Amino acid sequence: MNDIVVSSRVRLARNYDDLPFPHKMTPEQGDACVVRTLEALRDVPESYRFIPMKNEGDMEKKALVEGHLISPDLLLRKEGAALIRSDGAVSIMINEEDHLRIQAFAPGENLQAAAENAFRVEEALAGRLNFAFDGQLGYLTACPTNIGTGMRASMMVHLPMLTLFKQMGKVNQVAAKLGLTIRGIYGEGSEARGNLYQISNQVTLGRTEREISEAVSAVARQLTEMERTFRERTLEKDSVGFLDQMFRSYGLLSNARRMQEKEFMAHWSNLRLGAAMGKLPVTTALCDELLTKGQSAQVQQAAGKPLTNREIDEKRSDLLRRALTGGE
Amino acid sequence: MNDIVVSSRVRLARNYDDLPFPHKMTPEQGDACVVRTLEALRDVPESYRFIPMKNEGDMEKKALVEGHLISPDLLLRKEGAALIRSDGAVSIMINEEDHLRIQAFAPGENLQAAAENAFRVEEALAGRLNFAFDGQLGYLTACPTNIGTGMRASMMVHLPMLTLFKQMGKVNQVAAKLGLTIRGIYGEGSEARGNLYQISNQVTLGRTEREISEAVSAVARQLTEMERTFRERTLEKDSVGFLDQMFRSYGLLSNARRMQEKEFMAHWSNLRLGAAMGKLPVTTALCDELLTKGQSAQVQQAAGKPLTNREIDEKRSDLLRRALTGGE
Repeated sequence: MNDIVVSSRVRLARNYDDLPFPHKMTPEQGDACVVRTLEALRDVPESYRFIPMKNEGDMEKKALVEGHLISPDLLLRKEGAALIRSDGAVSIMINEEDHLRIQAFAPGENLQAAAENAFRVEEALAGRLNFAFDGQLGYLTACPTNIGTGMRASMMVHLPMLTLFKQMGKVNQVAAKLGLTIRGIYGEGSEARGNLYQISNQVTLGRTEREISEAVSAVARQLTEMERTFRERTLEKDSVGFLDQMFRSYGLLSNARRMQEKEFMAHWSNLRLGAAMGKLPVTTALCDELLTKGQSAQVQQAAGKPLTNREIDEKRSDLLRRALTGGE
Repeated sequence: MNDIVVSSRVRLARNYDDLPFPHKMTPEQGDACVVRTLEALRDVPESYRFIPMKNEGDMEKKALVEGHLISPDLLLRKEGAALIRSDGAVSIMINEEDHLRIQAFAPGENLQAAAENAFRVEEALAGRLNFAFDGQLGYLTACPTNIGTGMRASMMVHLPMLTLFKQMGKVNQVAAKLGLTIRGIYGEGSEARGNLYQISNQVTLGRTEREISEAVSAVARQLTEMERTFRERTLEKDSVGFLDQMFRSYGLLSNARRMQEKEFMAHWSNLRLGAAMGKLPVTTALCDELLTKGQSAQVQQAAGKPLTNREIDEKRSDLLRRALTGGE
């Protein structure tokens, strides 16, 4: 399914039972929340990078948002902080909407790996600290929509053909009936840049963690089948035209000297399509790596200094060209 | 100057003194004109392919027009025929507007080589047959604009930057004062596809052959200087943007699977620009070869069978890709 599923993610919302929710905290309580979390995690074997929102530079914070490691909301919280596992597979947001938002990521279709990582952190913390929990409702959260399991399972899926053939509206209706939503990840409004979508559960209450994961997986499987069918049909109908589209994007990405993010995302979609279908000399893993590295703040952060927009577009092209051709 | 001058051409108009001009000929006289020309050329060392217009297939005739070996007008003449030297460097149109139009071609800036080839054929014919000639006027032709030397000298020049910076109007005014014209070669109307222009003399009377060639060469040198200046300035001003433009076209030409002629010509222009400036891994000689081979009728003729437009666009892409990358 990794021809269509780019990555999997599990997010757990948790709150300490002796502190008010973040929007009602004093600065001292905010600091206490950060400190106890850091202390409780001191003994876990993995190493975490600690990033307090008030001290960090804009460039690094933007790069974390682009990488989906932290939310844009966290940037606005004075007492906010993040813990990023050194391999980037786990991030913990402290004092965002809830005291803790534990997120774990896995490449491709692998909600189980993501869930295991998230719950390992959650259990390490629960072993030393008390979470707000109600026997009837489950975990208590700042916003009622997260009460219960406090869990959101999601998958990032690449659906260029369902988008092209205007199937996303229909697909969304089906998903809604199962308590799931599907929405564009990059870009604003109705446009889904790169034809990338996130499937995730709306409902956290009245369902077990396993049921949530299974619902997301089931819809991902269904979308995968549909997307594959449209890909195969298009290939049968006009295989040269389909290859033409992929190879043109490959040719541009591996030759251009200056490319804006929006154009990059459009060609990236064709690149991943060609990689997933075994038509281009690129792996989907490389595509997915470039998806992150090619975002503007990531490019800027890799440069290690502030860049103009034009410089970002040039550095982006440089890294794409090097990655795709191994050349200068 | 071959960074800007693609090819040179000399054309001589000649008529036999005992036959009416082609538009007044009987079919028998037309045939007689063809036969005597063939006989007179029997002893020249080079071999010629004889192509009578009435028998030839459309595909071959279109390909000859595209290659500028014959004029579109010749296609309309029932008694028309062409003799094409096996290396394509000389073509003789029989019974077009005049009895003979002897054309010789040379790559790059080399009017001298073209003139030598044209006059060698002309002299071989003049040694056996009598041309219509007046002591005062010179060679007599069907249209008075060709009287005198009957010679047209021309160069095909590639002027992407003079076109981009809208200098062609100004340049044309200067050329007109010298009795020369500059016009687009491919495409119709004001658009010069591939940014390719032909400089040629308007006037054939009252100037020696040498003067005509020198006037064309002088204007070509001047345009070369101007075009180079604009290229250098553009490179200084925004070298990455300039490279980006060249490399994008290179990437598309070497990756696309289906490309129409108009799009091909636009990217070809960037390809030749990059080759001429030493920025792309391609020679100008290869570019010039592809310019001819990439034209629709040439693609069709190379396939040796009638093709649909879509098939032509695919074969064109195949040949471009092979030529540029050596790959499949």
